[in-house]
Amino acid sequence: MTAATTIPQRLAALRQWMHDHSLGAFVVPSNDPHFSEYVTPHWGCRAWISGFDGSAGTVVVTAERAALWTDSRYFLQAETQLRGSGIELQRMGVAGTPSLAEWLQQHLHANSVVGVDGALFSRAAFDQFQRELVEQQLELRATDDPFASIWKGRPPMPSETVIALSEQYSGESTAHKLARIRQQQPQDAVRIIAVLDEIAWTLNLRGGDIAYNPLFISYLAVEPQRAVLFVQPQKIASDTAKQLQEEADVEISPYEAFTEYLTTLGGKKVVVNPNGLDTRSWEALEHAEAHLIRESTPYGAVSAMKAVKNRTEIEGFRQAMERDGVALVRFERWLEEAVRSGARPTERQIAERLHAFRAAGEEFRGESFETIAGYGDHGAIVHYSVTPESDCPLDTESFLLIDSGGQYLCGTTDITRTYHFGRPTAEQRRDYTAVLKGMIDLSASQFPVRTRGAQLDVLARRYLWAQGDNYLHGTGHGIGHFLCVHEGPQSIRMNENPVVLQPGMVQSCEPGLYRAGSHGIRIENLILVSETDVPNGFLRFETLTLCPISTTALDIEALERPQREWLNSYHAEVYRRLAPLLTPDEQAWLRDKTRPV
Amino acid sequence: MTAATTIPQRLAALRQWMHDHSLGAFVVPSNDPHFSEYVTPHWGCRAWISGFDGSAGTVVVTAERAALWTDSRYFLQAETQLRGSGIELQRMGVAGTPSLAEWLQQHLHANSVVGVDGALFSRAAFDQFQRELVEQQLELRATDDPFASIWKGRPPMPSETVIALSEQYSGESTAHKLARIRQQQPQDAVRIIAVLDEIAWTLNLRGGDIAYNPLFISYLAVEPQRAVLFVQPQKIASDTAKQLQEEADVEISPYEAFTEYLTTLGGKKVVVNPNGLDTRSWEALEHAEAHLIRESTPYGAVSAMKAVKNRTEIEGFRQAMERDGVALVRFERWLEEAVRSGARPTERQIAERLHAFRAAGEEFRGESFETIAGYGDHGAIVHYSVTPESDCPLDTESFLLIDSGGQYLCGTTDITRTYHFGRPTAEQRRDYTAVLKGMIDLSASQFPVRTRGAQLDVLARRYLWAQGDNYLHGTGHGIGHFLCVHEGPQSIRMNENPVVLQPGMVQSCEPGLYRAGSHGIRIENLILVSETDVPNGFLRFETLTLCPISTTALDIEALERPQREWLNSYHAEVYRRLAPLLTPDEQAWLRDKTRPV
Repeated sequence: MTAATTIPQRLAALRQWMHDHSLGAFVVPSNDPHFSEYVTPHWGCRAWISGFDGSAGTVVVTAERAALWTDSRYFLQAETQLRGSGIELQRMGVAGTPSLAEWLQQHLHANSVVGVDGALFSRAAFDQFQRELVEQQLELRATDDPFASIWKGRPPMPSETVIALSEQYSGESTAHKLARIRQQQPQDAVRIIAVLDEIAWTLNLRGGDIAYNPLFISYLAVEPQRAVLFVQPQKIASDTAKQLQEEADVEISPYEAFTEYLTTLGGKKVVVNPNGLDTRSWEALEHAEAHLIRESTPYGAVSAMKAVKNRTEIEGFRQAMERDGVALVRFERWLEEAVRSGARPTERQIAERLHAFRAAGEEFRGESFETIAGYGDHGAIVHYSVTPESDCPLDTESFLLIDSGGQYLCGTTDITRTYHFGRPTAEQRRDYTAVLKGMIDLSASQFPVRTRGAQLDVLARRYLWAQGDNYLHGTGHGIGHFLCVHEGPQSIRMNENPVVLQPGMVQSCEPGLYRAGSHGIRIENLILVSETDVPNGFLRFETLTLCPISTTALDIEALERPQREWLNSYHAEVYRRLAPLLTPDEQAWLRDKTRPV
Repeated sequence: MTAATTIPQRLAALRQWMHDHSLGAFVVPSNDPHFSEYVTPHWGCRAWISGFDGSAGTVVVTAERAALWTDSRYFLQAETQLRGSGIELQRMGVAGTPSLAEWLQQHLHANSVVGVDGALFSRAAFDQFQRELVEQQLELRATDDPFASIWKGRPPMPSETVIALSEQYSGESTAHKLARIRQQQPQDAVRIIAVLDEIAWTLNLRGGDIAYNPLFISYLAVEPQRAVLFVQPQKIASDTAKQLQEEADVEISPYEAFTEYLTTLGGKKVVVNPNGLDTRSWEALEHAEAHLIRESTPYGAVSAMKAVKNRTEIEGFRQAMERDGVALVRFERWLEEAVRSGARPTERQIAERLHAFRAAGEEFRGESFETIAGYGDHGAIVHYSVTPESDCPLDTESFLLIDSGGQYLCGTTDITRTYHFGRPTAEQRRDYTAVLKGMIDLSASQFPVRTRGAQLDVLARRYLWAQGDNYLHGTGHGIGHFLCVHEGPQSIRMNENPVVLQPGMVQSCEPGLYRAGSHGIRIENLILVSETDVPNGFLRFETLTLCPISTTALDIEALERPQREWLNSYHAEVYRRLAPLLTPDEQAWLRDKTRPV
């Protein structure tokens, strides 16, 4: 089989294709045509052409040279995987590393044409890259997919079954969602949706095409009177299809028919998102002379609607948290016992055991992302992913950081706890306490309507800043309802994001502190923006996550009174909600973990 | 004299002028051609045409009607002053109030032409207004100044003497500043500067043309080899002119020659700020076919340079604070004695007395803005300006809010203190304490380089938000060095402002709380962004203002430990710095006011 082709052979095949198409260079990103966070193997073109299989990277190939751009998370892995490939590593964020456009200018003649698969660049990303190349006197062209011909043995498109999420879980019928979407566009317009979680949310469907995210590969066209779902028909059970048709006027058409459909929209008003629709589809619409209406925000109207959870979804989140909380209590009891008995499970064993506790619960539909279980210095690697080489046994000198989440029919969870099973040092206590104080202050904050996440972010960071520390990831990301663990459009981070926090939005609250080579700390709950009865429109957060927060490394004296009160109140709620779901032994354990400080 | 003309007569004269120029409407803003915060009487066209003399307002006149738009600060004043004028009041921010463009659409035929004096609209403001009018199918045209002919007895341009600020105060020579400015533009370009504080800063000159702001009406052109200052020549003493020429190649040309000069720039690169240059000048440059280069930021390169104070300027601020502090100590002692003796001075008398204490010090060059001295419910009016009708005697039931500042050769001050001379109620104590805690938290914060003001703003507001309160003004504005009390480009406020806080920037820290009809509280210091020796680039604030903060209404038990420590440390510093400048009696008084809590 062709799996045995070498990277140089694959590069040669691409170069032949480039030559046939008169391209001076070709750029291979990590995207799929739907701009998903996780990409199915069918679109793993960048990994196939380079041998580098980290989640983030872009390969550029010219007739003579090839290079891969990736970020610091992957420098070591890329060095190893690129060895012997002839592909140079370009370290993003390191001084002296050229941009793609600069590198291309150095290695191409002026006015050379650079090709990209138009399906893998959003219109906005294509336009931006084009501007950069024009500055270097190069041309950018959207092409077809070269890997369709050169990648022998390419994995097929995934074809997992799609399930319908009943209104008992979604809280809003598909017909009603479609009606609300149509209100956001001119009466005679068609909206084209390519972003998979927008489609899943709109149609109350969930799939299994993509790891961790319950999505299915598809496009959706919302017309004035009907909607058309472009999807491999075999994924949709006939009763689901019938229900979609009868209750919401949704017709099903083959995935491959989408491009053809676009050509029928000539003269029509078509609402499109430059950040959510690929360049090839965009060019098809332009070629058909459709009247394009760009979404008024970078994230699109459906994402904005999806971000505000309804009462049923919120109640579902609360149930998911109870299930998750029970699993986490059982897991932590097991972990403590393992430490006590000297069993010293490894990071990988810990992650597997946590999975098993979650899987034993009801309605569990898999993890919402790959569990991060990092002991000691591994905890300081923000996106640590255990490998056979890195896997190490738990010890009692440092922190164990566990960031994990579950998918349930009723909601999605994402939680981080940091444990210490020995005697924390003064530095460890100081660091842990500073992280927790920030987590509490943000969780306990009250703020006026129309507040943006960037205004609140400092509440989670200020104790770290005061001691000269910081964390370079966001404090909070939106989270889907039995959907993607990362979703927009709101965020809580240092960067400005004009989206205001609205009642019904669920996001994480996850400050951290990472001392390279020593330890990492992160404490994360999910928090819901909630109304208050305070006059003049003040909002607050309701903490959804139900799981004790370790106090082993907490300097209780360093808590301010409101922080101590918050912690005690939170723990009382954790006990009140979880205890009825636990055995007497577990209840006793939880009572101890949630006693007031 | 024509001062006796009535508003209807003035409107009639403008309408005749509009008729002669085929204009359907004319818009009169509050601006001068330099977009100054304070406008000299010469450009008081809007006040002259309407009789309304508040600081903010725009008059629109059609053949049949006239209307004035102003904000809630001025609703009452405008109602009174417009009575009998035939000018309707449009209340900005009140539901149902049309925008100017909407109102014009209602009262004009389609395709009518709306005129504005091109000198009073920046290019950016003109373009924005034009877009709004085009949406209403109206046309906007920049005209000459109708008031040049119709306003008989118009006050002349001010012609106060300009003084040179020696390097002892400015810390950087004019030649050096010009060299730095030229580094920010193409070698062969000319930069046009119309904003008065940018000109004063660049040339190390100060004037007296405008109330409170030591500015002089002028334009500046920074050419590659020389600079040209357009100013009434009699304002500049001959030795100053000679020094400018010899040391910095600055030539002086009459103010009126500026427009003629612009016509000589055909074919040249000209750096201009669309927010800082008027439309008439802009059109002259376009007509001459100059190659216009727009400034890359909305505020312009010179404002960015001016905002970062050098060591001499910072040392000057510290001196100004000592002078201001001595005056404020003497003032507060007098005030306490007045209360004790039952003298009950009025707000106006209090403001006058404060002025006298400042004026008794060295290098005082007037107030930096009109003192706000508001007792009780007057303190709740954010921009309270005492009138003969409103003036009231001090009492001991509520707070006295005093916001004031001084201009000194060595710097500019701006300080607010809120006093209570009786027994504060529980609500008064709660409110005062919440304001002070926020003021302290922001002042004491440490933050990474590249932090924006909007990220820190919540530190000043969170205790207020927690009790369901807020204030709708900014927390901090930049302040000039013996220049304008309000300057950009940085700010600390709820709105996003992409300008990062840099070492050397001086701004206010002034949270407040306003209970309409009851009381107002504001506590304001000036704070300097300062480097720290913390690794990885952390900044902090140095508090510059030296004046005790009243603890009469402070609930000391509600302070967190770091807040209490900050207050005690601040008061110790106030005593240390001011005591040597005071008499023994004053020292004893200050020791009492600054004792640890």
